Amino acid sequence: MSKVVVGVMGPGIDTNHEALVFAFELGRLLALEGWVLLTGGRDAGVMDAACRGAKEAHGLTVGILPGEDNSDMSASVDIPIVTGMGQARNNINVLSSRVIFVCGMGAGTSSEIALAIKAGKKVILLCYTQESAAFFQSLGKESVFIAEQPVEAIAIAKKLIDD
Amino acid sequence: MSKVVVGVMGPGIDTNHEALVFAFELGRLLALEGWVLLTGGRDAGVMDAACRGAKEAHGLTVGILPGEDNSDMSASVDIPIVTGMGQARNNINVLSSRVIFVCGMGAGTSSEIALAIKAGKKVILLCYTQESAAFFQSLGKESVFIAEQPVEAIAIAKKLIDD
Amino acid sequence: MSKVVVGVMGPGIDTNHEALVFAFELGRLLALEGWVLLTGGRDAGVMDAACRGAKEAHGLTVGILPGEDNSDMSASVDIPIVTGMGQARNNINVLSSRVIFVCGMGAGTSSEIALAIKAGKKVILLCYTQESAAFFQSLGKESVFIAEQPVEAIAIAKKLIDD
Amino acid sequence: MSKVVVGVMGPGIDTNHEALVFAFELGRLLALEGWVLLTGGRDAGVMDAACRGAKEAHGLTVGILPGEDNSDMSASVDIPIVTGMGQARNNINVLSSRVIFVCGMGAGTSSEIALAIKAGKKVILLCYTQESAAFFQSLGKESVFIAEQPVEAIAIAKKLIDD
Repeated sequence: MSKVVVGVMGPGIDTNHEALVFAFELGRLLALEGWVLLTGGRDAGVMDAACRGAKEAHGLTVGILPGEDNSDMSASVDIPIVTGMGQARNNINVLSSRVIFVCGMGAGTSSEIALAIKAGKKVILLCYTQESAAFFQSLGKESVFIAEQPVEAIAIAKKLIDD
Repeated sequence: MSKVVVGVMGPGIDTNHEALVFAFELGRLLALEGWVLLTGGRDAGVMDAACRGAKEAHGLTVGILPGEDNSDMSASVDIPIVTGMGQARNNINVLSSRVIFVCGMGAGTSSEIALAIKAGKKVILLCYTQESAAFFQSLGKESVFIAEQPVEAIAIAKKLIDD
Repeated sequence: MSKVVVGVMGPGIDTNHEALVFAFELGRLLALEGWVLLTGGRDAGVMDAACRGAKEAHGLTVGILPGEDNSDMSASVDIPIVTGMGQARNNINVLSSRVIFVCGMGAGTSSEIALAIKAGKKVILLCYTQESAAFFQSLGKESVFIAEQPVEAIAIAKKLIDD
Repeated sequence: MSKVVVGVMGPGIDTNHEALVFAFELGRLLALEGWVLLTGGRDAGVMDAACRGAKEAHGLTVGILPGEDNSDMSASVDIPIVTGMGQARNNINVLSSRVIFVCGMGAGTSSEIALAIKAGKKVILLCYTQESAAFFQSLGKESVFIAEQPVEAIAIAKKLIDD
């Protein structure tokens, strides 16, 4: 039986400190659940922090890279998937994840939330802005969850995955 | 020299009447400018309305279809581009458009706005909700414009394209 | 009703003279049929030659570009479609074309022939090598046609499109 | 440091017995090397056989699925990557693999060989036809290797990966 793959999405640049701390902690906690971490794979921001957290707990990490090689890959990615399709790879991130955790906000990240709602996937927002929470909840009330702390987000995800 | 291609994006389902009327009018007006219309190409909602408007003014229409064939294509698409890549084609819509008009809001549509901001493209919102305008302006202040009427949106686009 | 879109595929580099002459002539002849030309869109080799031929006959040309912008576009492309997905765009070339003409051979080109056979599309080979003709005919006997001259290739395509 | 990911490609249908036996054995042997197996992920033909072989040796398997969900996934895939992009995902298979083993031949498979040569990846052919070997060697002499047995193919791959 295939492993449970969950996504952690968030900005690669202009990331605030809390988003990075939360991403690391999410990575660590989801690895302890035995889940595989999927991120955008780059050596930047939330992607890299989540992968580092997962590796600290000896988890397995998959990076769905936008470029044509793995030159900008996080050193904490175990399995690089090289797409060569830029931001169109965001749809793969979403379709491949059972649940999507979002830490912080940016243009690429918000495309992933939108694509997740479109695909009927569940999204858990952390470090959200008021505007983003209001907007995405207006867009997909039953798809969007909010958590204040990583441990709360993991609890929501466990419930969603067990259902 | 290549033609000016502009996108009209908007929901295929749950479209309100005003969004359809505005999409038709946008299609008509942009064809009168000599621009080529690009949409998601399906026989539904804003995509179809914009194509019908463009054809009324004898414009040229390109449809970037998500499926593996053109079976769900709007009858007003001149040039079907068959991608077979589902919502990942939204990034192509955005990258191929000089300016993106958005009529109404939905999950797929909001992924296109987000991808447009990510790609540095300009977006003009019509029939927006308060939540969507507030969110996308917080995300990319210099990329997002707002118009109350199609004729105003066209004027904004002309200025952006001439720059 | 949508226009008839046909593809001309062939190498961008290491192109022999005959392939370029044939591509130009194919572009010219298919424009005279009223068909829209689709190519990989770059300013190189068979793609560019076919577009120039089509424009000489006042045809319409669509370029499905691999990059994230149109900086390497043939000057004879009317409608650039910017995919940002590298060689994965080859599948779009194939799915969007009613019939595919192939001039010359290369790695990218042969991926397009293979994808065309996979998608059930008809391919007409010109300037083929013995190895390529033997291989692709072994792969899809009913999908692969051979022509010695552009005018013969156009005649085969007309028959396929009318069927 | 990321794991070594290698691909096994081959037809999902019309697969001869030898190709299935070889794919299973390749999967088993590459897992013993500590490599991660990447395939097209479907519950069919060479993809499934290779995954079963890798699991017999307690290896890790990644499946790059063409559909929008994992409903047609091989039961021996550990990590399903859901692309929703049909045959365009073949380019991801190729870009993500350090070396590509090919068992048997078909249209989709030959698109992967062609894309691999285009991307500068090394391909090792097993259960090849004379036409396919002659063609692909004419296309990319330095990219295409030939092996008569899985154990020989693994030896070639080890040398390529160590280089």
